Amino acid sequence: MTDSRLLAWAYLSKVVEGPNIYLQNLLKDGYDPEKIAFGIKQRQTWLGEGLLKATESRALVDTAKEDLETITRLGGRLITPEDKEWPKEEFDHAFGFAASGMSDHVRTYQDDALPPHALWVRGGNLRQLAAQSVTIVGTRAISHYGAEVTREFTHALATHQWTIVSGGALGVDSVAHSEALRAKGSTIAVAACGLDRPYPSRNRDLFNSIVRAEKGVMVSEYPPGTPPQRHRFLTRNRLVAALSQGTVVIEAAWRSGALNTLSWCEGLGRVAMAVPGPVNNAGSLGCHERIRNGSAQMVTSADDVRSLLGAVGAMDSQAQYELNFAATPIQGLTRNELRVYDALDDRDVGKEAAATATEAGLTLQLTIFLLIDLQKRGIVRRDGTLWFRNTEMQ
Amino acid sequence: MTDSRLLAWAYLSKVVEGPNIYLQNLLKDGYDPEKIAFGIKQRQTWLGEGLLKATESRALVDTAKEDLETITRLGGRLITPEDKEWPKEEFDHAFGFAASGMSDHVRTYQDDALPPHALWVRGGNLRQLAAQSVTIVGTRAISHYGAEVTREFTHALATHQWTIVSGGALGVDSVAHSEALRAKGSTIAVAACGLDRPYPSRNRDLFNSIVRAEKGVMVSEYPPGTPPQRHRFLTRNRLVAALSQGTVVIEAAWRSGALNTLSWCEGLGRVAMAVPGPVNNAGSLGCHERIRNGSAQMVTSADDVRSLLGAVGAMDSQAQYELNFAATPIQGLTRNELRVYDALDDRDVGKEAAATATEAGLTLQLTIFLLIDLQKRGIVRRDGTLWFRNTEMQ
Repeated sequence: MTDSRLLAWAYLSKVVEGPNIYLQNLLKDGYDPEKIAFGIKQRQTWLGEGLLKATESRALVDTAKEDLETITRLGGRLITPEDKEWPKEEFDHAFGFAASGMSDHVRTYQDDALPPHALWVRGGNLRQLAAQSVTIVGTRAISHYGAEVTREFTHALATHQWTIVSGGALGVDSVAHSEALRAKGSTIAVAACGLDRPYPSRNRDLFNSIVRAEKGVMVSEYPPGTPPQRHRFLTRNRLVAALSQGTVVIEAAWRSGALNTLSWCEGLGRVAMAVPGPVNNAGSLGCHERIRNGSAQMVTSADDVRSLLGAVGAMDSQAQYELNFAATPIQGLTRNELRVYDALDDRDVGKEAAATATEAGLTLQLTIFLLIDLQKRGIVRRDGTLWFRNTEMQ
Repeated sequence: MTDSRLLAWAYLSKVVEGPNIYLQNLLKDGYDPEKIAFGIKQRQTWLGEGLLKATESRALVDTAKEDLETITRLGGRLITPEDKEWPKEEFDHAFGFAASGMSDHVRTYQDDALPPHALWVRGGNLRQLAAQSVTIVGTRAISHYGAEVTREFTHALATHQWTIVSGGALGVDSVAHSEALRAKGSTIAVAACGLDRPYPSRNRDLFNSIVRAEKGVMVSEYPPGTPPQRHRFLTRNRLVAALSQGTVVIEAAWRSGALNTLSWCEGLGRVAMAVPGPVNNAGSLGCHERIRNGSAQMVTSADDVRSLLGAVGAMDSQAQYELNFAATPIQGLTRNELRVYDALDDRDVGKEAAATATEAGLTLQLTIFLLIDLQKRGIVRRDGTLWFRNTEMQ
């Protein structure tokens, strides 16, 4: 990437905070980031009112050069959708699902239901580390029980080559990151501020260990210098969920931020999981609530997590090979995809997702996830709330 | 009841162990218990081979008089389906559901899926105490956590006028009975041996307290003198589940007997519930397994239990009054019954129970329970696996 192009991306990262639908639409329509950056500085009307308004206060504060220098000094870099390291698969999957509008959470927070336009990273290759990953989050007020369970889950998952994604907070997040490193595994910490600002400061050493580890990476949507603010944590949480195939909440009382991440997980079509705990302790209230209302699967061991995540697509290379060389799209379906496909009617009769889930014996969430995936591949089609086999594909 | 008739029942209780389909069929067909008892002693062939074979070894051991004397000396009595105290509603409900053959457990243990033909009782009125009751069972190897949760649940439920049913075993059962008494509530202990034999003997004082309490009762299908044997515990468990509207398991490891009771609860169409606990302790493994596979509802408080049990029919007297005087059967439906009824199609189109459950937003188990109940009242009808509104009733 040329210097001027990288500067344009850094500028866009700074002046357009968080995900922005107007910027993303321009990029999607093929507009050049340098041209957009120039347009914002010049307040050109072709950008549209939305983007001009969003950049009103910061348009003239161009710190792109300093920000890139800062991240370089920290041994990091800025990555964009133009880079090989961009976690394209995870973002396409997650925000593609979000766009289907299945989730109340996504409808409520739809401004945030978009991928970032650029990411600041320090450490290993984000895309590679995210390819087989699981998010572990929970309360900052961790109990002895929560710490023990977090260590057990993390250790087993890290040992089985699952990258542990978390938010770098005190409590469950910190234990998850630390234990992943101790197990010589991989970990991704998603910050809600610039990577030059270790927050919470008590985790400064932990963050340095992550960056120095062979398979650790710190990542943030925010350029250097951005302070952690409450709204950024909520926006950040979507990335904590989007960068992995599923999220496990270990200990969360009412209103815990971890539950917000779990809602994102659900809204992004990932596998939402929660660990039960003692019922006479408020620490697991939030987990129990999510299990009870069916928005999270109960998991009691790392094996549970692995089998749930395995069910949504982690495939060994042989299976991937067979998929690529299957004679027909139907023959190439995974077992769960086939269950969903078979659950649809053979005739030209549509079926609701809920009835399909019942027929397939899968959770509604997983069924919707698979239906959307099959739809993208043209194997099923949707009309209103009804799903159909796309018979032309057979 | 005449002495000779009571002696006949006592004799049948002794020579025909546990539930017996041949005996029950004869009684259902209107045969007199005295005539059947006489026939068994005389080995009369009209009884059929099944009953003759079942009574082969004990037919001539008539201890009816002694057994009645023993139970009288203990301040107890023998009750039969001819008595007002017989818990007819509970047994009709539970074993009527079992007869629908919905449950694998019931199919496996179908010999036991029948009501008892007589019950030996000490203490309060069984039918009254069972009318609003909940079973609380669990491991004998109770943990500190299990004891605390059992006390909390029991105390709250007993205080809200729910009778606590349990099996009188060490551990969770004992804590449940004791706490019910401490809360000045009601409790039913179902023994797997004669009531003259306190088993386990360590619970002798507890059993005496139950019998002496105003609202406590000890009950057994087995006549005095019957020793506790392993198979009797399994057969007994169905009564522990049948005598209440729902069963809560608090702590159960793999293969815990409490899980057998929970399977009975499910097979008898009662509300099966389990309490989660720490995942790093084997004590809650069985509970988690049942919650995970959907065969038990997760409950984390006594309020959860009350609302689940309330949903299947516990009604205040005003609602009961309205039901009795409703202008049409449909107007008399409870809210959940109406949800199921409304979920069925208006036209002459049948619906599977699973689809009905999805439509009604209720669990499959509760939906089947309600469908069967509605069927008995002629409000819905079934054809194969499809359910229909019975339009003649509207």
